[in-house]
Amino acid sequence: MEQLKSLQQKIEVALADLKISNSPKSLYEPISYFLSIGGKRIRPILVLLAARMFNNKREDVLNQALAVELFHNFTLVHDDIMDAAPLRRGIATVHEKWNDSQAILSGDVLLIVAYQYLMRTHTVYFGDLMNAFNQMAIEVCEGQQMDMDFEQRTDVTIPEYIEMIRLKTSVLLGCALEIGAIVSDASPEDKKHIYDFGVNIGLAFQIQDDILDVYGDAEKFGKQVGGDIISNKKTFLYLTARKDANEAQQAIFEAQMNNSNHAEKVEIIRGLYDELNIRQISASAMQGFYYKAMEHLKAISVIQEKKQLLIGLSDYLMQREI
Amino acid sequence: MEQLKSLQQKIEVALADLKISNSPKSLYEPISYFLSIGGKRIRPILVLLAARMFNNKREDVLNQALAVELFHNFTLVHDDIMDAAPLRRGIATVHEKWNDSQAILSGDVLLIVAYQYLMRTHTVYFGDLMNAFNQMAIEVCEGQQMDMDFEQRTDVTIPEYIEMIRLKTSVLLGCALEIGAIVSDASPEDKKHIYDFGVNIGLAFQIQDDILDVYGDAEKFGKQVGGDIISNKKTFLYLTARKDANEAQQAIFEAQMNNSNHAEKVEIIRGLYDELNIRQISASAMQGFYYKAMEHLKAISVIQEKKQLLIGLSDYLMQREI
Repeated sequence: MEQLKSLQQKIEVALADLKISNSPKSLYEPISYFLSIGGKRIRPILVLLAARMFNNKREDVLNQALAVELFHNFTLVHDDIMDAAPLRRGIATVHEKWNDSQAILSGDVLLIVAYQYLMRTHTVYFGDLMNAFNQMAIEVCEGQQMDMDFEQRTDVTIPEYIEMIRLKTSVLLGCALEIGAIVSDASPEDKKHIYDFGVNIGLAFQIQDDILDVYGDAEKFGKQVGGDIISNKKTFLYLTARKDANEAQQAIFEAQMNNSNHAEKVEIIRGLYDELNIRQISASAMQGFYYKAMEHLKAISVIQEKKQLLIGLSDYLMQREI
Repeated sequence: MEQLKSLQQKIEVALADLKISNSPKSLYEPISYFLSIGGKRIRPILVLLAARMFNNKREDVLNQALAVELFHNFTLVHDDIMDAAPLRRGIATVHEKWNDSQAILSGDVLLIVAYQYLMRTHTVYFGDLMNAFNQMAIEVCEGQQMDMDFEQRTDVTIPEYIEMIRLKTSVLLGCALEIGAIVSDASPEDKKHIYDFGVNIGLAFQIQDDILDVYGDAEKFGKQVGGDIISNKKTFLYLTARKDANEAQQAIFEAQMNNSNHAEKVEIIRGLYDELNIRQISASAMQGFYYKAMEHLKAISVIQEKKQLLIGLSDYLMQREI
């Protein structure tokens, strides 16, 4: 997708050119560093694509796209502390390169700067933008807390898991699109549909990620295949398997939890998944959300042609490796 | 001050009655806990007093007062992690009672909820409120980072120290008053004067705190007298003394840095302060800021009688123990 590349480029340039202070250096260096390590910039691109779909005429919509990307980076910096993650995209995380205090504080500043950029538009949009953004921001924090809680629990249900990924990752995609719609004077119905499109696409992406972690092509996936199995992560696949397994299969699961032979563990658990038809069950759940997303996109009152960019982006992301 | 008590009570009731979610509990329990441990609630009271001074007719100004208190609590929860403080007001801090991750995340939510309450007013104020609040919020983070940087530095100057306390503590007082003025349709000049009044009163308070830590009455002060000396904190008194000391006195300072006999250390350093006239120099700096604050208050275009509550509060806080 050539257009995607050019939008990514636009975001990169704007981020590199961000008008923020540089003093004290110990606060702003971690911010510049983290913003420069890249990423696909999907969320700000969603703001721009929604704005384009709704015939946005404002030149300053890039500010709201940046707000969404700044918010996303705030969550990454703080999540990396909580997960004690040493690396992100192969590069040292902020708390690792500096320390926890600087990571907390530079994350805080990223969130505040996100609010500053959100407001760089006509005042008529302030109320709607703040309502959408604040609700999303709180939900993302709730999702992160649920995710951490799940690590300690053994009774997580599939509906709880769906709710967790909805909050932690999907509402931000929905909100990014809604923000693009807000500053383009879309109707309340269209704003709701594009939000729901984003949330459902987000759920589909996340389940796809869970599938790819087990069945993906290591080279294309860019992460260690089986990582979720090795770390006993409660993914859609794992929770479905534990729900469907018979007594003998449950015993194998239990026995594998602490298996330190990782290759063997991945092979055995994948064997159980295959017996239980987990790949197909998960793929059909994923397709269900994808289908729902497309229904919401269809319902939006702009001509089909205008929707092509969003369909193209979704397909590009969904097909990437499976 | 009877009126102060009744305003404090009003804030306590509103905080206890805050309309926030309660799920997941692991995220919201730390928030309720921390908001309930009290404090003087000076900052939200400043919002209400400014609004009263400018004849505010809006019933919802309490929302902006809460926004300021929520923001203040966000900074306390995160600062306590950075300072590894086990106690606040004699009670376990959030990261101590739960853990760092929950403290980071519940602090984040406090900041977002602060924005929600800030916006609970007429849309006409949104732009001014967000500009004032965002700038203040970023400056408070900068001040906290400077404060941490100072711990590692030996060349901190007095102007740098004043800038640090202006950012870390004073701009929030100025902003609280400005917010009260904004939602009361005060003139641009009056908004500026009340902000500057708050900042200068804040600087006076902080220097007074530094003085009280060395010369205060232990019982009234409520903290260990000499705590700053024991921890080698770079206060206004310490920096002034190091600037003015002769070679022999510098040598005594250096020798005392690692003295583990705390009572002796406090006595010796206080002796140096006395030789160098530090108490008087500091008091006169404090009075300078207090005087400047009063000049800004005088310049505000409302009748003198309306200013009495703010003067009363300032005097009450300034005279508390010295």
